[in-house]
Amino acid sequence: MQIIQKGRQTWLFPGGIGIIGQAASCGPREGKSPIVEDFDQVFPDLHAGQVSFEKAEQKMQEVTVKEAVAKAGLKLEDIDLLFAGDLLNQITPSGFTARNLQIPFFGLFSACATITEALALASLCVGAGVADRVVALASSHTCTAERQFRYPNEYGSQKPPYSQSTATAAGAAVLAAAPAPVRISAVTVGKVADEYIADPFQMGAAMAPAFADTVQTHLQEMNVEGDYYDLILSGDLGEVGLSIAQELLNLSGIVMEEGKLADCGLLLYQDNKAVFSGGSGCGCAASVGLGHIYHRIAKGELQRVLLCATGALMSPLSVQQKESIPAISHAVALERGEQ
Amino acid sequence: MQIIQKGRQTWLFPGGIGIIGQAASCGPREGKSPIVEDFDQVFPDLHAGQVSFEKAEQKMQEVTVKEAVAKAGLKLEDIDLLFAGDLLNQITPSGFTARNLQIPFFGLFSACATITEALALASLCVGAGVADRVVALASSHTCTAERQFRYPNEYGSQKPPYSQSTATAAGAAVLAAAPAPVRISAVTVGKVADEYIADPFQMGAAMAPAFADTVQTHLQEMNVEGDYYDLILSGDLGEVGLSIAQELLNLSGIVMEEGKLADCGLLLYQDNKAVFSGGSGCGCAASVGLGHIYHRIAKGELQRVLLCATGALMSPLSVQQKESIPAISHAVALERGEQ
Repeated sequence: MQIIQKGRQTWLFPGGIGIIGQAASCGPREGKSPIVEDFDQVFPDLHAGQVSFEKAEQKMQEVTVKEAVAKAGLKLEDIDLLFAGDLLNQITPSGFTARNLQIPFFGLFSACATITEALALASLCVGAGVADRVVALASSHTCTAERQFRYPNEYGSQKPPYSQSTATAAGAAVLAAAPAPVRISAVTVGKVADEYIADPFQMGAAMAPAFADTVQTHLQEMNVEGDYYDLILSGDLGEVGLSIAQELLNLSGIVMEEGKLADCGLLLYQDNKAVFSGGSGCGCAASVGLGHIYHRIAKGELQRVLLCATGALMSPLSVQQKESIPAISHAVALERGEQ
Repeated sequence: MQIIQKGRQTWLFPGGIGIIGQAASCGPREGKSPIVEDFDQVFPDLHAGQVSFEKAEQKMQEVTVKEAVAKAGLKLEDIDLLFAGDLLNQITPSGFTARNLQIPFFGLFSACATITEALALASLCVGAGVADRVVALASSHTCTAERQFRYPNEYGSQKPPYSQSTATAAGAAVLAAAPAPVRISAVTVGKVADEYIADPFQMGAAMAPAFADTVQTHLQEMNVEGDYYDLILSGDLGEVGLSIAQELLNLSGIVMEEGKLADCGLLLYQDNKAVFSGGSGCGCAASVGLGHIYHRIAKGELQRVLLCATGALMSPLSVQQKESIPAISHAVALERGEQ
């Protein structure tokens, strides 16, 4: 298989990398979403039958990978590599999941951009012939992430209206150089952008410049206009960040038609005001991208989608130390393949 | 360039991937090491002129990458990809470093195995033709890691004699498909092993099974005996873990001659009893492997070395929740190249 580097940050896969299996899981709040039919499993309670929220997140990861691998008609032993990550300190859910799955494992962290980091690395490995079958995985859990980064949800602490809320969700894909209903045609690896926003509730604003930079770089290096894609999808900027991203894109001459610039969390939660400005967490873009968007492409409702997950690379400690919030966005181009 | 997958976990690079630039930096305690001449820069104080220990770690990363890139005769703009990680929550030093360097960035986490995870991914990318020049980087800082995982060093809390102490160090390499004094000839990607040790001071014991598993898999998939290597180097099992690893290897029929099984932290600290059983931290294997060992190979004192950094994939929270300590080890085979 052939891969072509375009410019410094973009790699093209002329034959496409097939998504030969995929799955998405979610928690109870996400289970009330209008796009719930695109999830393979909805866990009706936040503990998912486990003794801790962290174990629940791990359980969700395992179920999701096993479902994706089963849909690909494969066994866990058939998988060459697992690229996975999550939001928790030392990405412990992913580490324990990799232990249980016994797949050679590369642990990743780029906050909520982790799923596109994983898909980019997995595509590059498959495209360049390093490995035949590779799994990409990311997850988040509202109770594990909110208490680690902010306060436990049970405290009921107040959040500003421009804040976002972590999704309880996981998404996984099995990639191979084989025909598939949806394939990856290109990836753009992001650079870290920082507009020196330091308010940890302003995630959307902090990440919008990284998103705009990656989208702009991708279009430029691919030598296409924004309307090449039916949808350019951020994950997750929320309402606030998406409006800033739209302005930034407009300023650089990229004008998207109404509705062609969208956000994973806004698709997942739609008019649920409990999430304030929108969703967040690695699992949000992972489950919406590899669940809902995958199915819309497979059905032919969309032909080409650019999925640009965005990650805020701060920690509670860096925030306490008054540091800014650097952010990154990796882009993965999904397109309709063989039906 | 050609790459060959052997078995499930090992990839061979028949032409070798050249380490065309490398650098190692360390803090004041490491600066008293007998191998200090192999470091490019010794920071005489733990703050490295910065306002926080975390910024000091980031500073050490930046200096190390810049030195490695300069030694390769390149500029930062010439680098296609940066694979980097560290021990801190959300790998913030690496995120801020990637922001300052403006190199397309993949954030990694596999605890103290991060440098071999980074070298493995960087080698695979260069070997498979994904990218021309790739940087691998890892670091740790005794003050940032000890206070995050255990207690601030300033507390002077007691540690058991089988515990280890985090190194203040960073190591970086620039990889390319070009002749170089030291090259990477193969990598083995680890699976997560867990013998259900739950004492967070027993890192060596928790990680020894992952190390033994990766070494055994590597030798088997390469179809060579242990004596194929002049040195098989763990990073970092400490005295306790290394003796367990030796027994585990013996049990599987791999018998290494006296002195041919060694540990990065033990080479760095030698008879310094302040580190108890030995060193730890991503920067330990990164700086010893890419500093001391690199130079010993380049000088011809060693021909072939298998560097197997080991990572304990627990978090303070997973320990509080009485979970075991899963561990991983990735192996990178270094050999003498063109002089």
